[in-house]
Amino acid sequence: MTKSRDIENAVGTSRRQFLRGGAVSGGAALAGGMAGPARAATADASNLPPDIPEWMKAPGDPMGSQPYGTPSPFEKGVVKNIAQDLPQYLSASGRTPLQDLDGIITPNGLFYERHHAGVPTIDPAQHRLMLHGLVNRPMIFTMEDIRRFPSESHIHFLECSGNPGYKKPYGKTASDLVGLLSCAEWTGVKLKLVLQEAGLRPDAKWVVAEGADAAAMTRSIPIEKCLDDAMLVYSQNGERLRPQQGYPLRLILPGFEGNMNIKWLRRLHVTAEPAYSREETSKYTDLLPDGKAREFTYTMEAKSIITRPSGGQRLPAKGFCEITGIAWSGRGKIRRVDVSVDGGKNWQEAQLQAPILTRALTRFRLPWHWDGQPAVIQSRATDETGYVQPSLAELLAVRGENYFYHNNAMWPWRIAADGEVSNGETA
Amino acid sequence: MTKSRDIENAVGTSRRQFLRGGAVSGGAALAGGMAGPARAATADASNLPPDIPEWMKAPGDPMGSQPYGTPSPFEKGVVKNIAQDLPQYLSASGRTPLQDLDGIITPNGLFYERHHAGVPTIDPAQHRLMLHGLVNRPMIFTMEDIRRFPSESHIHFLECSGNPGYKKPYGKTASDLVGLLSCAEWTGVKLKLVLQEAGLRPDAKWVVAEGADAAAMTRSIPIEKCLDDAMLVYSQNGERLRPQQGYPLRLILPGFEGNMNIKWLRRLHVTAEPAYSREETSKYTDLLPDGKAREFTYTMEAKSIITRPSGGQRLPAKGFCEITGIAWSGRGKIRRVDVSVDGGKNWQEAQLQAPILTRALTRFRLPWHWDGQPAVIQSRATDETGYVQPSLAELLAVRGENYFYHNNAMWPWRIAADGEVSNGETA
Repeated sequence: MTKSRDIENAVGTSRRQFLRGGAVSGGAALAGGMAGPARAATADASNLPPDIPEWMKAPGDPMGSQPYGTPSPFEKGVVKNIAQDLPQYLSASGRTPLQDLDGIITPNGLFYERHHAGVPTIDPAQHRLMLHGLVNRPMIFTMEDIRRFPSESHIHFLECSGNPGYKKPYGKTASDLVGLLSCAEWTGVKLKLVLQEAGLRPDAKWVVAEGADAAAMTRSIPIEKCLDDAMLVYSQNGERLRPQQGYPLRLILPGFEGNMNIKWLRRLHVTAEPAYSREETSKYTDLLPDGKAREFTYTMEAKSIITRPSGGQRLPAKGFCEITGIAWSGRGKIRRVDVSVDGGKNWQEAQLQAPILTRALTRFRLPWHWDGQPAVIQSRATDETGYVQPSLAELLAVRGENYFYHNNAMWPWRIAADGEVSNGETA
Repeated sequence: MTKSRDIENAVGTSRRQFLRGGAVSGGAALAGGMAGPARAATADASNLPPDIPEWMKAPGDPMGSQPYGTPSPFEKGVVKNIAQDLPQYLSASGRTPLQDLDGIITPNGLFYERHHAGVPTIDPAQHRLMLHGLVNRPMIFTMEDIRRFPSESHIHFLECSGNPGYKKPYGKTASDLVGLLSCAEWTGVKLKLVLQEAGLRPDAKWVVAEGADAAAMTRSIPIEKCLDDAMLVYSQNGERLRPQQGYPLRLILPGFEGNMNIKWLRRLHVTAEPAYSREETSKYTDLLPDGKAREFTYTMEAKSIITRPSGGQRLPAKGFCEITGIAWSGRGKIRRVDVSVDGGKNWQEAQLQAPILTRALTRFRLPWHWDGQPAVIQSRATDETGYVQPSLAELLAVRGENYFYHNNAMWPWRIAADGEVSNGETA
């Protein structure tokens, strides 16, 4: 008994705390067979040989049936959340099912997508990157050339600037709400090194990046970012980029809004002025109350969301319930996350899971005992600059009613007495 | 010109260093169209509108064609490396194509596999974990029960103890040699908390873990590890475990040999003595020169491998060539990696890519200028305990000729004058 008490002390909680006090059917003292539902009576397990489930009675799926593996058929519902009501090519987006994911890495098959003219199928042997304009030596690079440069790997989030837009029906789940957000380990070459290869002229102030999709997606990037942490990326989570993520080459501008991280990158035009392209004038700008537009709004400010429990889920029972979610900031590292379980009146500091990386998702967790009463839960991120995630009311008060992009407001989830979780703003 | 010189100074190298001096066809000054091969002449890029490649002339693959994404068709050769000459069920293994990967995260589709009776297809709603033996309260857990416990996420490598065995033909590539090695972000519950829920008795010294495959794969784990960093894991790189990795539940014993990290985990039997199961007596032990066997050899010692350039690859040209690879240790963090480009006579310290995490892969890199002459390159890891990766000769001298498992020797790659890279031990 001493031993188990030592363990209890080590984790700072009392035994059977996590599964006690609820209607949960499992976690029960061992009584029946292994494969059937557990019953609540106690028994001596050593007298009860466990049933052998069907899948132990014959050899399983042979090696080699999946040279490139896929998820279990029982996870077939965990896919990208694709809006059915948008024009296919002009405004296609697929959201990461954040409420079904753990940790900070998004698997490549579930990474969010936002395309302006579908996904091109590009032969990497034919793909070229042109670097021209205000450089001493205009150049064309093959993919082999790009891979000869010194490489780096960094874990960064990527988020669409309209995640979500303001004053929209935000849907039911964490994915509906902020699923245009993912995080991966990116490998490639610092853009700085490639610009250096060509030699920047003194009047080089912007780099206009163009994608090789049918939209020729084009954005202007200030030279300071290009000479800082911007990367030309060819790999994501170890393997080469997926077609949906810009195969064979894309820009990664850590912390900047997603659409600037040009996919299928084919051209870097070094200029003295921005291009004022469609996607930085008529789109991806915000109308201010005085009728002027706020443009070149790059950085994704600090934000967080509780992913479990979240909309569409149901608490199985009162008692212990871990609250967990993700936080991120385009300005650097997350410093702290606070969680409220009473509609924002009181706040508790959540635990942050190491490693806490700059411009990457950070997983937070808070142990909570749900008393079975209705509750409203929400999280609030603070980044290393001291910036604190605002409420939606605070944002609207400052920005007015015409705003669409860069909604980084806190988001409440409402828990009903039956454990059902729903969107706290639209309920 | 000042600007570009500033950039050069900032990166500590001279302009055009990386692509200069080789026969590389790209990286050429801009001359021809974008889609065709670049030519070497210089020209004013601003006068040359780039050719429009075919894939820009029509909208691409529509959104929704891949609710769960897959790699580009041009990467179809990057798959698990599956031994064709082994009995299908008794000794099936699939290796990660390390030479094709960057960074430290292994994508789930390419994670290495080693099965003893194929891959069972398990319904998570039917799966149970039984915890019994020297506990105060034997229990059966559903997957929902397991997910109610407090969770943690950690990035750890996993490596088979026979990676590679001694005195075998080691093949051609880094994958042939040490591809029974991968790294992922694992999420689950500390085993300690689950043992605490049942209450350990004072004589509990071992936990015998059993898998729900047809081999009922069984290993004994010392209680100290179970109360330290051992985890019951349900997610890998964000999503639920793949069937090949133990869906819906597996053990992760950070730094311990792969086969102890029991997949499809169905039973934890707490005991006073180890089980002396087949897989810790007739297998996964090593015969010493005196005829006795070394058993319960858990920890994977410090090791490293250069993955680029590596066997089966070819250097495109003399000149700048980044040497990169991975290092890991079951004892903790990697402290340093040294690289030799002259067959082990001289060594240079490589750069380690942050984050450097305990019992995780660590990516290392060394800039190198290849002079076009034959060379032998190899890496040597040192971990935070001060342990230094040995040579194969050193290992054999200590362990004798009957050893099979735990070969963590340095491995040389031989570079020929034509740039061809081959295995330095078997050549």
